Amino acid sequence: MYKYSYLKDLSEQVFLKMGANPEDATLAAKVLLSADLRGVDSHGIARLSGYIRLWEASRVNATPKVKIVHETPSTATVDGDAGLGLVVAPQAMQIAIDKAKIAGSGWVSVKNSNHFGIAGYHAMMALENDMIGIAMTNASPLVAPTFSVDRMLGTNPIAVAIPALHQPPFVADFSTTTAANGKLEILQRKNLDAPLGWIQDKDGLTTPDVHALKSGGALLPLGGDREHSSHKGYCLGSIVDIFSAVFSGANYGPWVPPFVSFLPLPENPVGEGIGHFFGAFRIDAFRPADEFKAHMDNWIGAFRNAKTVAGQEKVLIPGDPEREIQAERLAQGIPLLKPVVEDLKALAEKFGMVFEKV
Amino acid sequence: MYKYSYLKDLSEQVFLKMGANPEDATLAAKVLLSADLRGVDSHGIARLSGYIRLWEASRVNATPKVKIVHETPSTATVDGDAGLGLVVAPQAMQIAIDKAKIAGSGWVSVKNSNHFGIAGYHAMMALENDMIGIAMTNASPLVAPTFSVDRMLGTNPIAVAIPALHQPPFVADFSTTTAANGKLEILQRKNLDAPLGWIQDKDGLTTPDVHALKSGGALLPLGGDREHSSHKGYCLGSIVDIFSAVFSGANYGPWVPPFVSFLPLPENPVGEGIGHFFGAFRIDAFRPADEFKAHMDNWIGAFRNAKTVAGQEKVLIPGDPEREIQAERLAQGIPLLKPVVEDLKALAEKFGMVFEKV
Repeated sequence: MYKYSYLKDLSEQVFLKMGANPEDATLAAKVLLSADLRGVDSHGIARLSGYIRLWEASRVNATPKVKIVHETPSTATVDGDAGLGLVVAPQAMQIAIDKAKIAGSGWVSVKNSNHFGIAGYHAMMALENDMIGIAMTNASPLVAPTFSVDRMLGTNPIAVAIPALHQPPFVADFSTTTAANGKLEILQRKNLDAPLGWIQDKDGLTTPDVHALKSGGALLPLGGDREHSSHKGYCLGSIVDIFSAVFSGANYGPWVPPFVSFLPLPENPVGEGIGHFFGAFRIDAFRPADEFKAHMDNWIGAFRNAKTVAGQEKVLIPGDPEREIQAERLAQGIPLLKPVVEDLKALAEKFGMVFEKV
Repeated sequence: MYKYSYLKDLSEQVFLKMGANPEDATLAAKVLLSADLRGVDSHGIARLSGYIRLWEASRVNATPKVKIVHETPSTATVDGDAGLGLVVAPQAMQIAIDKAKIAGSGWVSVKNSNHFGIAGYHAMMALENDMIGIAMTNASPLVAPTFSVDRMLGTNPIAVAIPALHQPPFVADFSTTTAANGKLEILQRKNLDAPLGWIQDKDGLTTPDVHALKSGGALLPLGGDREHSSHKGYCLGSIVDIFSAVFSGANYGPWVPPFVSFLPLPENPVGEGIGHFFGAFRIDAFRPADEFKAHMDNWIGAFRNAKTVAGQEKVLIPGDPEREIQAERLAQGIPLLKPVVEDLKALAEKFGMVFEKV
């Protein structure tokens, strides 16, 4: 187990060594580690060396000047200046929040960015402002549309955070595929089969082979197959792609650049970097905030107390599992897999630091 | 086959007999018949007598005064005055469009309404304004959250319409369940089994029994089961419910009133009527409209030309199937099932009219 504060400080030091200014380094480390705290291990410190390799490959600008390039009272298009998504995204979300303060809602589409960590972090920024937060991003193509063998979409997640009064907030944060890539990685590591409906092989046939993506396979949109409405997952992933990139002028669909620096950038790009989309609704833009939040408590209470299927302990509210993991990991530390530890040791050494268990 | 214009005129006459003013009657008939044109038979003229029975039960106000009860530059809360959703919804969507003209985006949550036909109609109103349209609604509870046996959510559809330049628009319109109720009704009529993952029985076990809803069963959220991420469908349905009803002050979750007039209204209502939610984005609120639309053409072209799985003719763009059906039905007429014809004959007779095949 590793202490949250130690891993956050280490990440901050690494971002400083990369050349980020202190404010950006602190923010990037906080956003990155929020994934580890919430149990989304695939998006946390395990990716730190990947971000650094992108910088080494000159695909990340360590000192971005994030700027608005187009706006209306409730919308803005933001150029991320090729910065870390971990830094660009919270700045863009803040613009959405600031717009909402005046116009009731705020909407920001971002181009020229990189991987932004977990969508949930950015959506949750709205909560302390008595706002609903929305965050989404496109990602490099791993997902085949219904009826296709080509990878055209990323796992394109959507997060929505909604405040309540005495209840904890409602926080949904999910990829628009049957299974996120992180879940597949867990099975790959253990060499276990995947349930049918998660992956297809190069011919478009559903397969339990967790390594099928290496041989021309693809992840499947939420729904899994046509009979179970995979076209709805395909619609959702497409909407995320269009809001994130066709609005902003980022790359979309098969043109989205990869996270891993050893893969070449797609030829004939249709935009700049990857794209994100953020939204904020002031809850008192619709009704008095206390009234809204009291009804959210009632909504949450009704669902939490719904009768369970035999063998299930309780009906969960979106955000419950992540909040429980966060409390546990803040108290007891964050577990890291051996390859991640090795990777962090090498990374620390590269910058003249030492990574140790504390 | 029945002519579109005949069925629309008949519906208009019926709404006039109900006491609607001419403008509302024309609008309601147009919205209702758009479902038949687009092939969503469960939401079209087959429901006409159902709307009338709601009016006979004093659950629909034939002469509603739709009004804004709360607003900001980019948002509004609308009271539908218990009117037909077919009339309330397009008026509310128009408010969203008008807000977007000035603020860049417009968002309207509606309380005190009724069933609004197909979500796609309302979202598509944005297209002719070079806007993206969004429409959603809650509905009476038929869906069990993941791990629950209780029906807590409706099929809560989401529609998103996005304009292109030379390509037809992207129009997604889907329920947040594995299968919409309309698909189930088709199987019920033919007494065929449903695929596993559509329905659960009263104990929460997945079942092929298409009549399981009559004995305490429920529809399943998009995903079907936990292993295939039904919690994501549950999240989506919940977000639709909260935006439509907790924002506006309508009934939510298990309190949403039924469409059928012979079922009692839920006790201890938490709001007024059912709720909808509408949004409009001006595309030039993010980048010049022609630029956006040219990239949409490129997006659509790339996906339409993606390689297909063997045996599949083409990769579809959301909206393709409905557009093809509409062209066919405008030319050749709309097919009606025998029980629907009988129902319409009785309805016409009730108002001193004759329903005939033309």
